[in-house]
Amino acid sequence: MKITRAVLLTSGIFATLLTLLQAEEGMIPVTQLSEFDLKSRGLEMSTTEVFDAGKVCLVDGICRVNGCTGSFVSPEGLILTNHHCAHKAIQSLSSAEHDYLTNGFMAASKAQELHAKGYTVRITESFSDVSEQVLSAATADMDFVARTKAMELRRKELEKQAETDNPGLRAEVAEMFSGRTYVLFLYTYLKDVRLVFAPPASIGEFGGEVDNWEWPRHTGDFSFMRAYTAPDGSAAEYSERNVPYRPRRVLKVQPDGVNESDFVMLLGYPGRTVRQRTASFLKYEQGVRLPYVVDTNAWEIKTLEEAGLEDRAVAIRLANRIKSLANVEKRSRGQLLGLGRTNVEQAKITEEMQFQAWIDSDEQRKAQAGSLLGDIDEVYTEISGAASFELPLQSLRSSCQCVSLAFQIFDAAVERQKPDLQRETAYMDRNFELTSQQMLLAVQDLHLPVDQKIYAEFTRRLAESPATPSSSIAAIPGVADNSQQAVERLFAQTQLTNPDFVRKCLSMSPEQLQGLNEPFLMLVETMYPEYMKLRETDKRRDGQLTQLYGPFLELKRQYQNSAFIPDANGTLRLTTGHIRGDSPRDGIRRVPVTTVRGVIEKTTGNEPFVTPDIVMQKAKNRDTTGFRHPQLGDVPVAILYDTDTTGGNSGSPVMNSRGELVGLNFDRTFEATINDFAWNPDYSRSIGVDIRYILWITGPVYGSNHLLNEMGVGVP
Amino acid sequence: MKITRAVLLTSGIFATLLTLLQAEEGMIPVTQLSEFDLKSRGLEMSTTEVFDAGKVCLVDGICRVNGCTGSFVSPEGLILTNHHCAHKAIQSLSSAEHDYLTNGFMAASKAQELHAKGYTVRITESFSDVSEQVLSAATADMDFVARTKAMELRRKELEKQAETDNPGLRAEVAEMFSGRTYVLFLYTYLKDVRLVFAPPASIGEFGGEVDNWEWPRHTGDFSFMRAYTAPDGSAAEYSERNVPYRPRRVLKVQPDGVNESDFVMLLGYPGRTVRQRTASFLKYEQGVRLPYVVDTNAWEIKTLEEAGLEDRAVAIRLANRIKSLANVEKRSRGQLLGLGRTNVEQAKITEEMQFQAWIDSDEQRKAQAGSLLGDIDEVYTEISGAASFELPLQSLRSSCQCVSLAFQIFDAAVERQKPDLQRETAYMDRNFELTSQQMLLAVQDLHLPVDQKIYAEFTRRLAESPATPSSSIAAIPGVADNSQQAVERLFAQTQLTNPDFVRKCLSMSPEQLQGLNEPFLMLVETMYPEYMKLRETDKRRDGQLTQLYGPFLELKRQYQNSAFIPDANGTLRLTTGHIRGDSPRDGIRRVPVTTVRGVIEKTTGNEPFVTPDIVMQKAKNRDTTGFRHPQLGDVPVAILYDTDTTGGNSGSPVMNSRGELVGLNFDRTFEATINDFAWNPDYSRSIGVDIRYILWITGPVYGSNHLLNEMGVGVP
Repeated sequence: MKITRAVLLTSGIFATLLTLLQAEEGMIPVTQLSEFDLKSRGLEMSTTEVFDAGKVCLVDGICRVNGCTGSFVSPEGLILTNHHCAHKAIQSLSSAEHDYLTNGFMAASKAQELHAKGYTVRITESFSDVSEQVLSAATADMDFVARTKAMELRRKELEKQAETDNPGLRAEVAEMFSGRTYVLFLYTYLKDVRLVFAPPASIGEFGGEVDNWEWPRHTGDFSFMRAYTAPDGSAAEYSERNVPYRPRRVLKVQPDGVNESDFVMLLGYPGRTVRQRTASFLKYEQGVRLPYVVDTNAWEIKTLEEAGLEDRAVAIRLANRIKSLANVEKRSRGQLLGLGRTNVEQAKITEEMQFQAWIDSDEQRKAQAGSLLGDIDEVYTEISGAASFELPLQSLRSSCQCVSLAFQIFDAAVERQKPDLQRETAYMDRNFELTSQQMLLAVQDLHLPVDQKIYAEFTRRLAESPATPSSSIAAIPGVADNSQQAVERLFAQTQLTNPDFVRKCLSMSPEQLQGLNEPFLMLVETMYPEYMKLRETDKRRDGQLTQLYGPFLELKRQYQNSAFIPDANGTLRLTTGHIRGDSPRDGIRRVPVTTVRGVIEKTTGNEPFVTPDIVMQKAKNRDTTGFRHPQLGDVPVAILYDTDTTGGNSGSPVMNSRGELVGLNFDRTFEATINDFAWNPDYSRSIGVDIRYILWITGPVYGSNHLLNEMGVGVP
Repeated sequence: MKITRAVLLTSGIFATLLTLLQAEEGMIPVTQLSEFDLKSRGLEMSTTEVFDAGKVCLVDGICRVNGCTGSFVSPEGLILTNHHCAHKAIQSLSSAEHDYLTNGFMAASKAQELHAKGYTVRITESFSDVSEQVLSAATADMDFVARTKAMELRRKELEKQAETDNPGLRAEVAEMFSGRTYVLFLYTYLKDVRLVFAPPASIGEFGGEVDNWEWPRHTGDFSFMRAYTAPDGSAAEYSERNVPYRPRRVLKVQPDGVNESDFVMLLGYPGRTVRQRTASFLKYEQGVRLPYVVDTNAWEIKTLEEAGLEDRAVAIRLANRIKSLANVEKRSRGQLLGLGRTNVEQAKITEEMQFQAWIDSDEQRKAQAGSLLGDIDEVYTEISGAASFELPLQSLRSSCQCVSLAFQIFDAAVERQKPDLQRETAYMDRNFELTSQQMLLAVQDLHLPVDQKIYAEFTRRLAESPATPSSSIAAIPGVADNSQQAVERLFAQTQLTNPDFVRKCLSMSPEQLQGLNEPFLMLVETMYPEYMKLRETDKRRDGQLTQLYGPFLELKRQYQNSAFIPDANGTLRLTTGHIRGDSPRDGIRRVPVTTVRGVIEKTTGNEPFVTPDIVMQKAKNRDTTGFRHPQLGDVPVAILYDTDTTGGNSGSPVMNSRGELVGLNFDRTFEATINDFAWNPDYSRSIGVDIRYILWITGPVYGSNHLLNEMGVGVP
């Protein structure tokens, strides 16, 4: 991996922040590994073998697969990631005749591998600190909206410049510390990704929503995909002529696995944590947003499930959405429980009172920063006050597929009239093809009766909210009193179910769209000013918070005179820990390794606890040679460890002390969801599939021994 | 304890049966202790110290408290038993003003101890084998009803004779092996029992039905009672002049408690197991009776709970019934689950096929016993066929309190015209006072609106059953079509809510009762022939089964050429084991000791997880000196052990290897309910209160240090 000089120079800042870190805490940016004594934690390789700016290293074996992490496990671009990460691909490729969700998918050769539309694989190539360039875009005379826009523009300019300088690569500027630190990442972006192997959903999702976020776990949440390039090795759209991508580094698959107490480490792209926010933010999350999410997601899940009950084809189309909704619903519930139980808000309030007193104890500091906390509070108070209007307005656009599609079409038409760099990111030339593809996938899954119910639900909430302004919103069908028939008319007359129509719309101007007489396009045109106002409001609040959090974090660092680590932001991190059980309550100890015995125990024959006959048969016959845990005498299914992870770590390789792949991360425990808000060593447990279960299911059970051979694993 | 020569002579039979027994299995009749190597199991006292026919021994420190077991823990007749065993007394003594259920009851001195009406304490004095006498009452020419009646009569004669020979004692003949072995027990029967100390139900029933049959457990299910006698030491009805009973032996209370892996043993009166029944019996239980119990109890619980929602006084009156119903409902569910999981029926079927083949392999044996299994099957087939009529008919009489009272009044009037020995047991002179008392307690708890719903439910079931004969039953209100108003009239006009009326009825003849014009008495008179038919049918089936099981068990013993132990029958047994966790499912280990930390964790402030402020306070202040577990550093609350117990073992002392009391048995795990049908060492776990929790709650928390002193336990 290459690294530019800029980062090496600024890495000292991180070093100060990180050296005092507690034993196992933290998602460590890979640039900072050398500051940690990983040897004493149990690592048996040098940190430069893990990450070296100038040389091929372990990190080169990791990639990002859409929102997940993946590992290269063969020189021919074979990627191991989660079943739930490949779920959208498996679902899109499935039909009533070829139900890959139900039956699994096993390509007998590369020729049989299927194109996973909408999937990309991203490999981190290099990065450099661009904090100064980003921050200097904002000048003192700007208001908050202008600040945000100026910094956004500067980030896009930097990205564009980097892409010009590095043809074929993609650039992204990531915010490490809000208002303080920005890093430019360069990525190889592979656009031809194919599905290679997926077990039946009864294995890949075993336990379903019942077991999601739970331990003990018995889910075989894995799949294999493969990245392809043009014959010359460059990134290219899908083509039959493409050839397998050749990664710089391949992770060694270690079929011996791990055992209780063993050291493990994960590399991955954890998405978002909010540990450094204030008590007022927590108050908003705990009192307003999370309860809203739990409530509306639960309703939406119920609605979608009812629609799928009678028609398997509909159920397949809605499966992925239900899965996502349920996942967020349960995580949010876990977070609410954890926030209540650990009383993080109260701890933050106490901490902030002392912090405020410390600020006030120095006259100069008080003059400069005395109102910081109060100013941050004000922003969250404003957000809370507007939530009963803004949240359903956002939900209407994100959950109702017709509104979502119409909005994106109209928004694209407006935005694409602007110069490229001034557009919203999704509509920039470099992104628009992907955006269009994802919209067409949404058209494919559109189910009007469900969508109408969702429309009615969120417009009802808008109608009932005291915060809803007497604006254009008040007059739309569903919000206005006499609108029942109008809602029905919208859905009776829409043309958005037609992919050709949507494709055609994507090249039209706003004026042309107006001429189409499509009811949702007309609706969205009415609502557009309100959505634009919301967009501006968000930018203003972002600007305020960015400007406030910058000095807040810097002062807090001075005050604490100890470490804190940047919140997760989708960039590459390392986390270490050990295979370790826990005691979720008095009298209960959870053992950190589960086995096939437990799969059989849980199998009831009713969803989500169905197990394919062949698995039952092989288990019964103890046909498990070569994949058994030596002490447990059975194939281990899942492992539990105390590393620090969050969403985005899905698909992260679990590696032993020598960097060999021994498992595949896919979840946290219900208790560990609190991690997003505050680190807690008692509760922090992540869940992975044991490599032995992956290999046993892939080879002996489903006959894909060629994949074991490709990974260099002997077939017993 | 005295023992008659007859038992010593016949004990050889048991010896052969028991010597080959597995390590920890079995509820061993105390007469057989010497046949076991209890030293090697961990017992540090001689078996004669536990039980000796001629001398005072450990067994003398045990008593039966109604259906439960109790221990004498002071020379002044202080008894430690479960809160749920004293529940009926606590409930009867409670009122809206003195709510001992909610607030607990703490007598500051003996003068404040309250009479627990309807309670008796029974102490085993001696026993002798009377098998020959009982079996010889039946002669070859008798039909099954006559056989049963003859043996019943002989048992009553033996009891009466024994009581004549031993003035002041009560005699009971127990069936050890159906149709083979009968033992006459002589008991001291103390009738003045008083409530001494009960913690609030929030402690004594902590976790309620949610935690019932569950582990980890945090219930302080204990209470103290005291037995009183006439000043001369003889058994007497309640009187202020009575004095505390002086037991021959007192159990030493050991405040040091036990630890994981320690040896423990229990003495107690396990009620009923059915391990030696056939597969056809299991089929009836699994397919018919248990599902019926689960279904009807769940319905009745819901109905009773709804009635109690609005009125705390009603809730108190119904609390005990709900508790009993819920207890049986969950146990039955656990048994159904266990029967399904372990597939006991299939194992029995296989075993019986081999057994049948063995019988048939010998011509003479075949001629004598070839049809035994088939004949037993036939009885259960008949029972199954009639169940949809007979079960609701029995439920109507047991669950509907008006029908129950009216039936008992009418039945008593009929029966008490017969010579004493020929009456049903409940109406014999020696029992009638107790029966009457219990009826008057039932009048006190009668709640007509609920009772009407129960009447309607079971008559509806009778109306719908295809097995209901076109008899008098078909015409009663609720079964007949046009009977809605008639049902209402029954309940509008009943006089059974009046205790004076009921008391008056109990001395009337059937003819006098007819003149009262009480609607339920008239109803019961109509139904009486059908209930008499049911009684005769039961006796016939009992007779058949007794005659069949006798040779069946004898042959099976020959065939297996190994041990089996008599099913539990309410007589005194010893069981041994160890403090031991379990793994109810893959990935979970349950630790065998819980602590106050867990009480706090579970406390939500909502029923059934409320904890009194004083407990929270003491726990928070770590005011636990002298009662802490040395390793866990907290007061242990409950302990788990792998002894063999069943209902009736409630209140059994858990003793260490020196016979010192370290805990109080009160439940089994959900998985262990299968024990009633088949022993299973993986599932068998019983649950007790740790002595340290009992002492901490009684002394430091609720200020009854005088009880600690009375038990000889130092107050820290």
